[in-house]
Amino acid sequence: MVTSAVVNTYPLSSYTFGTKEPKMEKDTSVADRLARMKINYMKEGMRTSVEAILLVQEHNHPHILLLQIGNTFCKLPGGRLKPGENEIEGLKRKLTSKLGANSAALVPDWQIGECVAIWWRPNFETIMYPYCPPHITKPKECKKLFLVHLSEREYFAVPKNLKLLAVPLFELYDNVQRYGPVISTIPQQLSRFQFNMISS
Amino acid sequence: MVTSAVVNTYPLSSYTFGTKEPKMEKDTSVADRLARMKINYMKEGMRTSVEAILLVQEHNHPHILLLQIGNTFCKLPGGRLKPGENEIEGLKRKLTSKLGANSAALVPDWQIGECVAIWWRPNFETIMYPYCPPHITKPKECKKLFLVHLSEREYFAVPKNLKLLAVPLFELYDNVQRYGPVISTIPQQLSRFQFNMISS
Repeated sequence: MVTSAVVNTYPLSSYTFGTKEPKMEKDTSVADRLARMKINYMKEGMRTSVEAILLVQEHNHPHILLLQIGNTFCKLPGGRLKPGENEIEGLKRKLTSKLGANSAALVPDWQIGECVAIWWRPNFETIMYPYCPPHITKPKECKKLFLVHLSEREYFAVPKNLKLLAVPLFELYDNVQRYGPVISTIPQQLSRFQFNMISS
Repeated sequence: MVTSAVVNTYPLSSYTFGTKEPKMEKDTSVADRLARMKINYMKEGMRTSVEAILLVQEHNHPHILLLQIGNTFCKLPGGRLKPGENEIEGLKRKLTSKLGANSAALVPDWQIGECVAIWWRPNFETIMYPYCPPHITKPKECKKLFLVHLSEREYFAVPKNLKLLAVPLFELYDNVQRYGPVISTIPQQLSRFQFNMISS
């Protein structure tokens, strides 16, 4: 794990973006997703998911890479760990699955950094909290967000059914309507870092 | 500085609270405060302020100590650094001024921990952001929030014109109306820590 109070961010233009086969969502509705979560919980216990904050810079302001599904819904790259899987290794596996090229030589050497936030899902519902609420002894999901330190040049292969967007922090901030509670407060969680904006 | 992913929190009942002479606010209105800020900026440049997150536990849930002025306005203990003052030493000075007993032997040995958030004031206005907005080359204030690790027993002397409240994270979360943007997102900034709740 890499930890540092100073984070190098490189220009969006220094990265290359290609496409690969579609990665379809496993569920077609929120109800399906919660039902599948319940079945998995009965088999495997609490779900642990890991997500990545990938940073680039444009106009000397930090931007986060988000995957857009359809026209509105955005999510961080990442996903569910296998039972017993190490979170750092699991996040690397998920990042390669979501954004790595099919050719192993082109896949980034993911440098997983600091855990910046942990969210808890107390029930089989969409609502999550940045703490495990009092009286909840069996939360259903724990989601961890990690900073990922990108090198100066990388190749990302984006599944054809998704779009990869670079969204500025000022667009995320105070925008819970558009990005939801987890993504819209990433600017606050990153505020303690000093961004070293490197020009091309 | 003390840094750890695990934070010990002790019961509110293990702390003792006394009173001391009032600490009046320097300004009686927001307009006065912004005018004073402007005068100080011309003399000393950007204002740097430091504030403390003091944690206790009740019912196995983390609570933050807030100073209440009048019936509604709450703030974190802390204040403005002197020009050139070290931020850790400055925060200790401010904590002693706000919450330390007049007898030096009773003043807590403040253990300043992690910086958890940094907020920027681009103009002589009340609005602050968790990043320095693009095109702002001369921000007017930088405010840093630090976790402070309390020992199992401490004595706090609260100025007579203020109240010291222990507010649970679940009350702060998503409550920007009551606590403002800085304090209401403290739960997200603390979510990465594991709280070791110690019973009395």
